[in-house]
Amino acid sequence: MAGADQEAVRNKQVTLKHYVSGFPKESDMCVITSSISLKIPQGSKDTVLLKNIYLSCDPYMRGRMSKSDSPSFVAPFQPGSLLNGYGVAKVVDSTHPNYEKGDLVWGFTGWEEYSLVTSPELLIKIQHTDAPLSYYTGILGMPGMTAYAGFYEVCSPKKGEYVYVSAASGAVGQLVGQFAKLVGCYVVGSAGSKEKVDLLTSKFGFDGAFNYKEEPDLDAALKRYFPEGIDIYFENVGGKMLDAVLLNMRLRGRIAVCGMISQYNLEKPEGVHNLMQVVGKRIRMEGFLAGDYYHLYSKYLDMILPFIKEGKMNYVEDVAEGIESAPAALVGLFSGKNVGKQLVLVDRQII
Amino acid sequence: MAGADQEAVRNKQVTLKHYVSGFPKESDMCVITSSISLKIPQGSKDTVLLKNIYLSCDPYMRGRMSKSDSPSFVAPFQPGSLLNGYGVAKVVDSTHPNYEKGDLVWGFTGWEEYSLVTSPELLIKIQHTDAPLSYYTGILGMPGMTAYAGFYEVCSPKKGEYVYVSAASGAVGQLVGQFAKLVGCYVVGSAGSKEKVDLLTSKFGFDGAFNYKEEPDLDAALKRYFPEGIDIYFENVGGKMLDAVLLNMRLRGRIAVCGMISQYNLEKPEGVHNLMQVVGKRIRMEGFLAGDYYHLYSKYLDMILPFIKEGKMNYVEDVAEGIESAPAALVGLFSGKNVGKQLVLVDRQII
Repeated sequence: MAGADQEAVRNKQVTLKHYVSGFPKESDMCVITSSISLKIPQGSKDTVLLKNIYLSCDPYMRGRMSKSDSPSFVAPFQPGSLLNGYGVAKVVDSTHPNYEKGDLVWGFTGWEEYSLVTSPELLIKIQHTDAPLSYYTGILGMPGMTAYAGFYEVCSPKKGEYVYVSAASGAVGQLVGQFAKLVGCYVVGSAGSKEKVDLLTSKFGFDGAFNYKEEPDLDAALKRYFPEGIDIYFENVGGKMLDAVLLNMRLRGRIAVCGMISQYNLEKPEGVHNLMQVVGKRIRMEGFLAGDYYHLYSKYLDMILPFIKEGKMNYVEDVAEGIESAPAALVGLFSGKNVGKQLVLVDRQII
Repeated sequence: MAGADQEAVRNKQVTLKHYVSGFPKESDMCVITSSISLKIPQGSKDTVLLKNIYLSCDPYMRGRMSKSDSPSFVAPFQPGSLLNGYGVAKVVDSTHPNYEKGDLVWGFTGWEEYSLVTSPELLIKIQHTDAPLSYYTGILGMPGMTAYAGFYEVCSPKKGEYVYVSAASGAVGQLVGQFAKLVGCYVVGSAGSKEKVDLLTSKFGFDGAFNYKEEPDLDAALKRYFPEGIDIYFENVGGKMLDAVLLNMRLRGRIAVCGMISQYNLEKPEGVHNLMQVVGKRIRMEGFLAGDYYHLYSKYLDMILPFIKEGKMNYVEDVAEGIESAPAALVGLFSGKNVGKQLVLVDRQII
């Protein structure tokens, strides 16, 4: 008993204060200090204790902050309880045969310094550590699989096709743009600041980019960049943007619906008026989740790791330091404060 | 010259008076009397002269009555000019090697008593005359191929799935419901009158049916008929109905978008607010046109003709008599006046 006490350490945690409506604020969350034993409690089978290194801030988390009548694809957070999400962690203790102390993993973990995980089957062991560990919250993690599955599997791109990506400098968008270039497509992205727009062309190789906030007429902007129309739209935004895109889709165009970040904080989502376009143009619009494609993860790594090593793929991250900064980092996604993939470095000492 | 004059006959024609906005009215069209020679003019190669028997009234024609900046999948009608569309006709004269006098055909023809067709390659020769000729405007024509392609090809139905059809007693909807039963699905349809709703269950074998005009809350109505949700939605309506359906779709649901008749007469289409549902539920929404599937027409006939003969498929038609009644018949589609497939019998004498 004395021994266990000695190993108890501080465990700062991020909790949801209350259900959120409208734009989330830092004050909708609390950072509280708890403590945790660094040994898994006796009798806990198939459990791992994680020291969290990186936490991933992802737009889908907004949906989990709302009280919902129709449950989303992930259960909502509970007021007063810990947030959770994707992260990168080191195994501190394990009673699960597949994991041992010192293993690095990525997957679902708590928004806290240490997490006791009772269903570690969902954690993926990190085998390749020659890429930055943080990449497992992004290009090598869920956003990477999202871009890969959404672009290659849902959109079936062909060389020479016209590709449009909204929220194009984000965790997923920047990858879709680069994949499109690898396939030999023409790709244009939109983002919400000059800095981001510059990144699209200078760092990620987009053929064109524009700041949607400076375009009073999105339809006209799209016609400028796509005089021949759009074959593939990678949809991260929704609302007015989707309406403008529908007007500019080409025959047999594909829209992979990854998310609709412009809509997440509205009491009632905007109406989309131009859906009749899908008939005459035979448009296919398809929602997808990376989670349905993890059977392709090793195939994806085989493709992406060499590209990273050869410098053929870039990945821009926006790293907030310390778990105290996590609420602001998460909230910042919805005002577009982040430039690139937003993540939180929980503890610099471990890496 | 005298001989040719003798063969000139009256040719009543339906023309568009002016571009239409809002609900079309009978007075947006004119029935004029012209004349036509029953011999193809000398020197006209690869031409056929048709005596029209049936004309088909189809909702997509509404789009062609508007002045449009973004052309639809079929060119708009021209003010002062003849309407055209699907019909059934008899060849009166031919200079095309594939057609001879007396042949029965279906396909694109003019809204008139006689039509001189200079690109008859688009006409399909009728080989099976043991089914009613009028069926070639419906179950054996474009609406049949629409239902077949949309349901079997776009939706890939499986036995036991839950299918919802809007505008379910219409030219296409009544077929989709019967196809769904053939596959072993549970199918519910909606329509806009008690008479139509009764037809759905009594004549077409739907498992359930409701009058959407008597449902103040479409979401609640759908939840009543689909407590487990909807796998396949055959979309003929759009707007509020689509919004309510999105809330009730099941995981990996499919929406075949055939048309959106509730939207055709609005200055600005209604907004659809629940598109975010497509992400979490991985919904595929796909527009299609029968025209892309005509390579399957003989396969379709092989399936459908025996069903018709064996009484396993029913088809309800609403026949307006005389070309003078064509404008009212077309207009009636948009107030739901028709019960079943709306068509116009141009001349009873020929059949």
